[in-house]
Amino acid sequence: MNSAPSVSSSITVRLEVQARPTAVSELTTAIEQTGGIVTALDVTASGNERIRVDLTCATRGDEHAGTIVDALRALPGVDVGPVSDRTFLLHLGGKLQIESKVPIRNRDDLSMIYTPGVARVCQAIAANPDDARRLTIKRNTIAVVTDGTAVLGLGDIGPLASLPVMEGKAALFKRFADIDAFPIALDTTDVDEIVAAVKAIAPVFAGINLEDISAPRCFEVERRLRAELDIPVFHDDQHGTAIVALAALTNALKVVGKDIGTVRIVLSGAGAAGTAVLKLLLAAGAHDVVVADIAGVVSVDREGLDPSLRWIAEHTNPRGLTGTLKDAVVGADVFIGVSAPDVITGDDVARMGDDAIVFAMANPRPEVDPVEAAKHAAIVGTGRSDFANQINNVLAFPGVFRGLLDAQSHEVTDTLLLAAAHALASAVHEDELNPTYIIPSVFNPQVTTLVAAAVEAAAREEAGKPADDTP
Amino acid sequence: MNSAPSVSSSITVRLEVQARPTAVSELTTAIEQTGGIVTALDVTASGNERIRVDLTCATRGDEHAGTIVDALRALPGVDVGPVSDRTFLLHLGGKLQIESKVPIRNRDDLSMIYTPGVARVCQAIAANPDDARRLTIKRNTIAVVTDGTAVLGLGDIGPLASLPVMEGKAALFKRFADIDAFPIALDTTDVDEIVAAVKAIAPVFAGINLEDISAPRCFEVERRLRAELDIPVFHDDQHGTAIVALAALTNALKVVGKDIGTVRIVLSGAGAAGTAVLKLLLAAGAHDVVVADIAGVVSVDREGLDPSLRWIAEHTNPRGLTGTLKDAVVGADVFIGVSAPDVITGDDVARMGDDAIVFAMANPRPEVDPVEAAKHAAIVGTGRSDFANQINNVLAFPGVFRGLLDAQSHEVTDTLLLAAAHALASAVHEDELNPTYIIPSVFNPQVTTLVAAAVEAAAREEAGKPADDTP
Repeated sequence: MNSAPSVSSSITVRLEVQARPTAVSELTTAIEQTGGIVTALDVTASGNERIRVDLTCATRGDEHAGTIVDALRALPGVDVGPVSDRTFLLHLGGKLQIESKVPIRNRDDLSMIYTPGVARVCQAIAANPDDARRLTIKRNTIAVVTDGTAVLGLGDIGPLASLPVMEGKAALFKRFADIDAFPIALDTTDVDEIVAAVKAIAPVFAGINLEDISAPRCFEVERRLRAELDIPVFHDDQHGTAIVALAALTNALKVVGKDIGTVRIVLSGAGAAGTAVLKLLLAAGAHDVVVADIAGVVSVDREGLDPSLRWIAEHTNPRGLTGTLKDAVVGADVFIGVSAPDVITGDDVARMGDDAIVFAMANPRPEVDPVEAAKHAAIVGTGRSDFANQINNVLAFPGVFRGLLDAQSHEVTDTLLLAAAHALASAVHEDELNPTYIIPSVFNPQVTTLVAAAVEAAAREEAGKPADDTP
Repeated sequence: MNSAPSVSSSITVRLEVQARPTAVSELTTAIEQTGGIVTALDVTASGNERIRVDLTCATRGDEHAGTIVDALRALPGVDVGPVSDRTFLLHLGGKLQIESKVPIRNRDDLSMIYTPGVARVCQAIAANPDDARRLTIKRNTIAVVTDGTAVLGLGDIGPLASLPVMEGKAALFKRFADIDAFPIALDTTDVDEIVAAVKAIAPVFAGINLEDISAPRCFEVERRLRAELDIPVFHDDQHGTAIVALAALTNALKVVGKDIGTVRIVLSGAGAAGTAVLKLLLAAGAHDVVVADIAGVVSVDREGLDPSLRWIAEHTNPRGLTGTLKDAVVGADVFIGVSAPDVITGDDVARMGDDAIVFAMANPRPEVDPVEAAKHAAIVGTGRSDFANQINNVLAFPGVFRGLLDAQSHEVTDTLLLAAAHALASAVHEDELNPTYIIPSVFNPQVTTLVAAAVEAAAREEAGKPADDTP
């Protein structure tokens, strides 16, 4: 939490107060006494006995805002109405709009975009289904699909409450990759029903971005959709995270002069993200990865392994470690956390090998306090925007889908994910590389271009299709 | 078909020709000899022996365009490449785009539209689901849902080929009612699967516009979705048609000075549109309606009636007519056709009552040649844009959904449909009304406003909700 009030946590409070001389000064005094800063005050209605005041003040965050509102409520003769904040105002009415790209000015226009002219376009697609990628929005449109079960750190809040995130994701797709993304928040958590619904609505889409679906259902949803659809299916929580983590690791290893094939890596978290990070590390040439979850190190000896953990046990832990996460990090070169807050301490980082690399990506509270970690590690990255080396999926998913759409790809493969990770790493030039800059800013305009080009090239090579320049 | 070449049927042909002096004049001569008009000619690439020419010419329509291309193909030394036309160019890349309404310029913006700020918005909706209509695109977003089984007059062309129509419909929603509509073309024709898919994706939508789903499945799809969803479900082929037909009839009856409660109405067509038109006519006070389908007049005595026809038989035909459609129209005041081309002739119209009203809405070829019908009837309307009184659904669906969304309505009722029809009729002022102007132009800006206001008011009254002015 920030120590000073911030306009990004501004609230506006509507108040009804008695119209006496000290009415307004009592309000501002109350706010100042709680540490808020009044930035605007409008009397928006007035009567003989009461006035309505819209009061905006900067706060230190939600809790502080609550304290301020409570202080206002405690004032005699004051009725507190709706409280809004800048973030809510930004979300009012939703964050997306659907626009027509064609003018509809007169009957001629109507006759071309709708009946009777449209019939010829329909017939062309009926005769040659591939023309849908030329003559409809399928060309550039993807679905952001969730069931609302694992939204941010909020858990199972349901499809309706997940919409602000899915809209935000769609807005990011537009901003960073000029992709038309539409939010599909499913009113079911049943795997069969999710698969059936996504298959049913697939025709208009050229790609499916799965989002915030809880494990282990997300694995089966992705596996079945990939098998049954002819468009790429990408679970961002898994593969987006994996791409960005591998890109960051690639550059971090360059900085410390180590090789991915020989370093010892500890991975905290065996859920959706952890499993995907692991698989991409192995595909990238890592040999010594030890995975730990809440029950400790995953090893073939551990009892009660589900199929996913069994797969992990059989493909990791070459030195046969057992015990806790804290045991595993002793002497390790790399710690990657996609798990929970504060699972290790600065002291644990101190017990890692020389020039340790720590990626603590749990959000908003990382696996280890990054300030403490930085006292002992050579390189520290987190998912947070207020520390160096933010490992953020926004670096990956826009470019990945841009490349998939441009290649008219039908599938996502490890080769594509590796290409994306290496392209992302390459966005940090050799002469920019240092322990506090292993990963580029999300606003670096090169990022999407590089990732997209690499994914498109890899997808075309896999499909045996050369690039073309037809519109 | 038009007799003169039209730029709205322009084609552009890419040609490779030998680079000899007469190369270009041979092309233009060939086109002029077939009756085409060359409007543009660009040499877009040149080599020592061959040139590439993009040639645009106006044609009299598809068949004529084919003749022109054949003539070009017959020229020696000419290779004909892709042929495009203006309509196809308009559809290139699809007709819709999804835009972000919020700026994403820096980390502050990111932190409000996405993590961490978005979490508070999600929590607000989780706590109060109605807030989704305030804080997400649900407020203004509907789905245009089809299974591609009854697209225009093309029949079952499948979901992919239906997309140009669904996108066009969405573009019309935007143009005429500022509604964000997204096309959902379902890859299934199974009623259970359609219902399950639409229910699954419903959270982001505030309304469902069903489109071009063949009868009788469309009835069950609509009935079940209306029962199971808490948002309005409107099958445009049924209710849109019914609203516009009733509006046109209301004004036509004014012109001829007859009353809906006493006129004899013959309805040709007992499918989705026919059934909906019938129900709305009855709700509007019609007492003497006779319905005929391909097997003749629907009466209680007819054998093999399915449940839908049984319902029709029991609610129509008070004089117990039997026989053919042509028998039924003798002496009738009103003929409404939502069926097939040329089911009656001008002579049949001559046998109708005085001041007959004929709405022949089959598209593109009406139930009766409107020129012939106009020789005997007082008022003639069709679905075509090249005759007076075009009875076009575009007059209804934008305003209906605008009203439903503004009222945050949960359902569509006959009362709302009647309100829409009467509002649409009122868009033609008393001093404008005459036999060639019983229904307004789709570009009349009053239309959507009037229909929306009437539907919103009716919906609020039914729900017992007063209008509010909160944003």
